[in-house]
Amino acid sequence: MFSFTVLKKDATTKARLGRLVTAHGVVETPAFMPVGTQGSVKALSPRDLEEIGCQMILANTYHLYLRPGAEVIRELGGLHRFMGWEGSILTDSGGYQVFSLGALRKITEEGVHFRSHLDGSSHLLTPEKVVQIQEDLGSDIAMVLDECIPHPATRDYVGASTGRTVRWAERSLKACKRSDQALFGIIQGGMYEDLRTECVKEMTRLPFDGFAVGGLGVGEEEATLSSIGAFTAGLLPEDRPRYLMGVGRPEDLIFAVRSGYDLFDCVLPTRNARTGTLFTSKGKINIKRAEFTNDPRPADESCSCYCCRHFSRAYLRHLYLAGEILAAQLHTIHNIHFYHRLMEKLRQLIRENRAEETLDIVL
Amino acid sequence: MFSFTVLKKDATTKARLGRLVTAHGVVETPAFMPVGTQGSVKALSPRDLEEIGCQMILANTYHLYLRPGAEVIRELGGLHRFMGWEGSILTDSGGYQVFSLGALRKITEEGVHFRSHLDGSSHLLTPEKVVQIQEDLGSDIAMVLDECIPHPATRDYVGASTGRTVRWAERSLKACKRSDQALFGIIQGGMYEDLRTECVKEMTRLPFDGFAVGGLGVGEEEATLSSIGAFTAGLLPEDRPRYLMGVGRPEDLIFAVRSGYDLFDCVLPTRNARTGTLFTSKGKINIKRAEFTNDPRPADESCSCYCCRHFSRAYLRHLYLAGEILAAQLHTIHNIHFYHRLMEKLRQLIRENRAEETLDIVL
Repeated sequence: MFSFTVLKKDATTKARLGRLVTAHGVVETPAFMPVGTQGSVKALSPRDLEEIGCQMILANTYHLYLRPGAEVIRELGGLHRFMGWEGSILTDSGGYQVFSLGALRKITEEGVHFRSHLDGSSHLLTPEKVVQIQEDLGSDIAMVLDECIPHPATRDYVGASTGRTVRWAERSLKACKRSDQALFGIIQGGMYEDLRTECVKEMTRLPFDGFAVGGLGVGEEEATLSSIGAFTAGLLPEDRPRYLMGVGRPEDLIFAVRSGYDLFDCVLPTRNARTGTLFTSKGKINIKRAEFTNDPRPADESCSCYCCRHFSRAYLRHLYLAGEILAAQLHTIHNIHFYHRLMEKLRQLIRENRAEETLDIVL
Repeated sequence: MFSFTVLKKDATTKARLGRLVTAHGVVETPAFMPVGTQGSVKALSPRDLEEIGCQMILANTYHLYLRPGAEVIRELGGLHRFMGWEGSILTDSGGYQVFSLGALRKITEEGVHFRSHLDGSSHLLTPEKVVQIQEDLGSDIAMVLDECIPHPATRDYVGASTGRTVRWAERSLKACKRSDQALFGIIQGGMYEDLRTECVKEMTRLPFDGFAVGGLGVGEEEATLSSIGAFTAGLLPEDRPRYLMGVGRPEDLIFAVRSGYDLFDCVLPTRNARTGTLFTSKGKINIKRAEFTNDPRPADESCSCYCCRHFSRAYLRHLYLAGEILAAQLHTIHNIHFYHRLMEKLRQLIRENRAEETLDIVL
């Protein structure tokens, strides 16, 4: 029920064109996954996503575990059915969210104890429980519980934490029961190349279906993100998908694709949409600006999304300033379409051995 | 560019089946118009409205005049193009909104002086200006400026106000320049049958394309609403459309259709949608209720809207409690679909001379 094939490698860069097959269909890679934190890609309906050509979304285990609860979703036929989405779903492990809770969580070898951000109730997430929750959700790709280490962190802390992440990964594999769900390991190691190398060595001994690189985009310098990101991708096995977690901006995606990554997720296009920032082929625009008051042009003149086919910047600006819900819907359709078009363009360039070329969009 | 034909009258009640043709198409009556206050039916895209089978929406002159301004909309090709809606549009006169401002407005024979609820700026709306604004907006049906009299009001006040509304109506007709826009007069007269009669007499001397009945649903008893509403409908000419403004609940629409009204608008289905109240054939439900936590059924098992075809009550409840925008979208699709289905059902009953029959829905 899960396979990954590298169809083509770019001649100059490390970019690769791939085909990932899950129990819910094909995902052409490199691919961007819109984030559906609580079982909904904010402001989009499943048919909006289908129209955009989205093949896989991400949902957050932490949020769905707390509300409405994994059992509720399992009883209702799993997350796909619950949210009316027929494409593929990757669920994260909840690690990132739990570790973001700061003082509200405590890590032990067993797992992570935390208090809910919703009602303060106490919970324990173990590697086994995280697998169980994701099996209840029925996502196509599950992630192991890891510790997403904040930046900066001492070498000692990163070393100890990464060791635990590897032990948790082993426990996660043992806990797996579903044969229709892939499980990805996560590479940590902070900004230390030797710890990343060590983590890759340990993780790739284990029979994971793919590998994610975590702990980037957490406050480090851009140059570090790029260098550690590219370095780590180069260590990963060729035959399995590589997922760069939580990154990011269009320019980050282009760099990461050239470094050999296949999968991405980020809240940026959806979150920006709701605050009126639109990605366009001529650069980002903020729809609030007075210059758009009378502007009859679509957000992006080269875009074919529903928003750009039907609505002017003037109307979008009006909706935004008037606080209309439709602004969030149309902006999100546009931004997610922009990201998908970017990935499509990158796939085309790889096909033509031109992945190193500068894209004809302003970033 | 405007015509209205009564196709069929019910045998028992005063209900009638009609066909209204505007510059933007056919509207089968009796019809409910969803309210698009600021140039957007809240949470719906134009294609959602088309899918539901909506043929005419209402937009608010007052809101669009203040923001983004009628000139902006005119320059951008009119309201239809601005909001991407190809069906018919009726614009109200702004009277209701202005008179709701209370202390912020002052009425003279010339018109109504008021301060904007947005920025406190001073404005004067005259009957002529209100026609001009609606011609700039380019709606298919425009309404004359009237005073929507609050309830209760003394007979003297209602008499004086209604007289002014008639004089304003005459001035409105003289101000009309567009031949592709219909203009409706508005019947006021409060809860006084003789003043309603007098107003109808004066208004129907004027060559309006249709007549609206205003000042109902403003705080009076239900029985008064019904009796004055039915009484006034009976006074209006057979050959022109009758529009009962701002009413209302499904049961009000059924009563009003049987009284001979053809057009309706109300914020109830859209507003209720956003607070989680869904109309169903088995009565209203509030999706927040704990009983829906695990409920796999659609909001309404007999409904064929996008929401009911794809999503469970459990999912809708989850979206609502999680504060997801998609809740507002799906709930609004459902409620507007419910209202359209109700009108469709009423039209069918009239066709079959069965308009007096009890509908197989719980209200």
